[in-house]
Amino acid sequence: MISREFVGALKLKLKAATILTDPSDCWAYGSDNSRRHALPDAVILPSSHEEIETLVKLCFDFNVPLIARGRASGTTGGVVPIKGGVIVSLERMTKILQFDPDNRMIQVQAGVLNSEVQKIAASEKLFWAPDPSSRDYCTVGGNIACCAAGPRAVKYGTVRENTLGLTAVIGTGETIHTGIFTNKGVVGYDFTRLLIGSEGTLGIVTAVTLKLLPLPPESRIIRALYRTLEGAALAVAQMTRQPVIPSALEFIDGNCLNLLREHYDPNLSSDAHAMLMIEADGDKEDIQHQIDRLKIAAKTDDLLSLEVAETAEQAEAFWKMRKSLSPTLRKLSPHKINEDVVVPVSKMPEFIRHIDGLSKKYAFTIVNFGHAGNGNIHVNILADPNDPIMGPKAKACLNEVFDYVISLKGTLSGEHGVGIEKRDYVAKEIDPVTLNLMKRIKSQFDPKDILNPGKLFPE
Amino acid sequence: MISREFVGALKLKLKAATILTDPSDCWAYGSDNSRRHALPDAVILPSSHEEIETLVKLCFDFNVPLIARGRASGTTGGVVPIKGGVIVSLERMTKILQFDPDNRMIQVQAGVLNSEVQKIAASEKLFWAPDPSSRDYCTVGGNIACCAAGPRAVKYGTVRENTLGLTAVIGTGETIHTGIFTNKGVVGYDFTRLLIGSEGTLGIVTAVTLKLLPLPPESRIIRALYRTLEGAALAVAQMTRQPVIPSALEFIDGNCLNLLREHYDPNLSSDAHAMLMIEADGDKEDIQHQIDRLKIAAKTDDLLSLEVAETAEQAEAFWKMRKSLSPTLRKLSPHKINEDVVVPVSKMPEFIRHIDGLSKKYAFTIVNFGHAGNGNIHVNILADPNDPIMGPKAKACLNEVFDYVISLKGTLSGEHGVGIEKRDYVAKEIDPVTLNLMKRIKSQFDPKDILNPGKLFPE
Repeated sequence: MISREFVGALKLKLKAATILTDPSDCWAYGSDNSRRHALPDAVILPSSHEEIETLVKLCFDFNVPLIARGRASGTTGGVVPIKGGVIVSLERMTKILQFDPDNRMIQVQAGVLNSEVQKIAASEKLFWAPDPSSRDYCTVGGNIACCAAGPRAVKYGTVRENTLGLTAVIGTGETIHTGIFTNKGVVGYDFTRLLIGSEGTLGIVTAVTLKLLPLPPESRIIRALYRTLEGAALAVAQMTRQPVIPSALEFIDGNCLNLLREHYDPNLSSDAHAMLMIEADGDKEDIQHQIDRLKIAAKTDDLLSLEVAETAEQAEAFWKMRKSLSPTLRKLSPHKINEDVVVPVSKMPEFIRHIDGLSKKYAFTIVNFGHAGNGNIHVNILADPNDPIMGPKAKACLNEVFDYVISLKGTLSGEHGVGIEKRDYVAKEIDPVTLNLMKRIKSQFDPKDILNPGKLFPE
Repeated sequence: MISREFVGALKLKLKAATILTDPSDCWAYGSDNSRRHALPDAVILPSSHEEIETLVKLCFDFNVPLIARGRASGTTGGVVPIKGGVIVSLERMTKILQFDPDNRMIQVQAGVLNSEVQKIAASEKLFWAPDPSSRDYCTVGGNIACCAAGPRAVKYGTVRENTLGLTAVIGTGETIHTGIFTNKGVVGYDFTRLLIGSEGTLGIVTAVTLKLLPLPPESRIIRALYRTLEGAALAVAQMTRQPVIPSALEFIDGNCLNLLREHYDPNLSSDAHAMLMIEADGDKEDIQHQIDRLKIAAKTDDLLSLEVAETAEQAEAFWKMRKSLSPTLRKLSPHKINEDVVVPVSKMPEFIRHIDGLSKKYAFTIVNFGHAGNGNIHVNILADPNDPIMGPKAKACLNEVFDYVISLKGTLSGEHGVGIEKRDYVAKEIDPVTLNLMKRIKSQFDPKDILNPGKLFPE
């Protein structure tokens, strides 16, 4: 609970910002896409960097937890205020600070939507690489916080490779400036990358400088069906080894195909046990060459069919099928567990086989799809972790999934982050010395542990 | 000076490593390519991670400075032991720990040469992107320490974008493991990037896991001469804005061309005041398309001539001319100042004009060349900074160069790093709050300030 003095100080020092303290107003700011919820004691909606500086100083003085929030599209409970305190929503931090197409750079306030950046960039035939499926309603600040990615990462990288610099307020209320405005630079420690993926635990990012890329005028998509998982995985490996890098290389497993057959397209071949969606982008003159190369690389003995979308409508239909997966799964299992583990590309078949074994052992449907080019697999366990009977079983199953990922030298998260959902598993991946050093680093940025407390680290 | 007890402890605990304490043996380990020198008190040549752990623990216990050194090809004095102490040379840390072409990954000890990694990778049609001109005699550990790059960075990125994970010993003698073996991952703070470019001040990197890329089978090079600097800069901007990204985009200014005309090729057109070297790489089938695109983008009103190398010999001749620059400059001015500032690409013409003005003001020859695609310019002031009369003038000139770089929102170093050469200027670029936080971060990694003391930060 926050004190009356603190609320008084907020109202005195943040006259221009909206301050919500009525629980019914604050309620909506208590959850994210993980469907967890905790009620914040107050919600502040600032519109300037200076207001955030003032706010952090007050929280520092009064020892109040402070959680920065974009649009809360994350899936890990990362912005759920589990220790109470203040939510600072960046929804009004939407200024475009500088757009410099000649230097392929844009600087915006952290509350700007990903899709807004894309729109502005596209007006000068540029784009920003990170393209999470939530791009229409997620903020670039949120993208920075969890190092968001999406299908395009396989060719163009994640937030980490496409951010030049940041302005942030650390836990003392002081402002730091990281990185540069140019696309190369090595002076000082790389605080830009340190803040990226730190989930609001080191500082509140108020402005971001993004590296833009030239927008390829054309794209073309291939859909390939395979008799076996191994056949599809071999195709992925073959594509990864040759120089035409696809702009998306998405994978859908046999269980997913069963669902799609049942709920979406009854004509999907029942011989197919894996599907790849392979996209190429580039100039009109070289896209055919890319498609030719990718078709050769996609060929394995187990290839059942391979179609290139010849029209925009057909391409749209291919993507629509892929995008229907998440809503279909949600319908089937509203409280499913959705992970985003990463394994080395060559280990994908044995990973999926192992998951199939766990599915039988625990009697849960588990479906897998994801960004095959990065080995980034969305493992969906169709079970409610909060169910009194199924919950513990689901968690035991998840624990085995994570153990197997680690045994393959994979990682627990490719793009969602840790939040609260995965904090109990972090020690599986990071050794005690390194984890302890991470905590000490946090204490330098945030000596009173007021910034998003209880997240990212094991309790 | 180190104590006799310390030397005794070294000899007792590091039986397998070579330990040099005779000044005549240690002498050669006191300098780098900056031509600065300081005599180390001892030099240790370990061949295992465990020996380095033991060594750091001893230095921690005895409070002895410890400077990790690859092959000392750096140009900033980064490995010169200005506070005495121990040099740990990683020249025997040359094991290949794991080469996994299917996952495009290689893990090696930090003392392996860059060219050795390239050779192994090429055996499976792969490569590691960072290609400093010193690649034949620089180590990957050194590349990590200063975030090395080279011409290819414009298309493929620097060390930062092409490293998956690190093993390092921090200043307490403890071992940390950073990053992952997969090419995507967001669990915990990004210590990999924090160590990259930290110049041995946070930890001694003992093993590195590198991300490899498919080796393009073909490359082709264009040489374009321009009547004016502005014409060349416009061409660079045009190339940067379209989707065919060149694999190298090198710039040579008018003063450089004068030198080349005098010392290398008298037939170089005297109307030319800027030159670009533009390389494309890729599949045989699409390289012509790339060259066509780049030729269009290279065209400006000031274009004087444009030649595409038709044979390997001609391409070789083009590169040879570019590579002759550094040795020619060294011959003319053995103690020249060689900086590697970065400015936004669109600001290059005004930057070079300003440098011309400084050249007249201070009566020094200043020549500029570099990686135009990144705005990374090697400013060479042909004056000896250690000369009693010219030195202070040269430093005043350099100071003005740096001030102008900062006024253009550039950075003081694109790939060389800070070392001792630039530490007095770092505060021009990094604000006091951020710089202070960097120092506090160092103290968490290295509480006794024994790792490469006196580097990177202003004294």
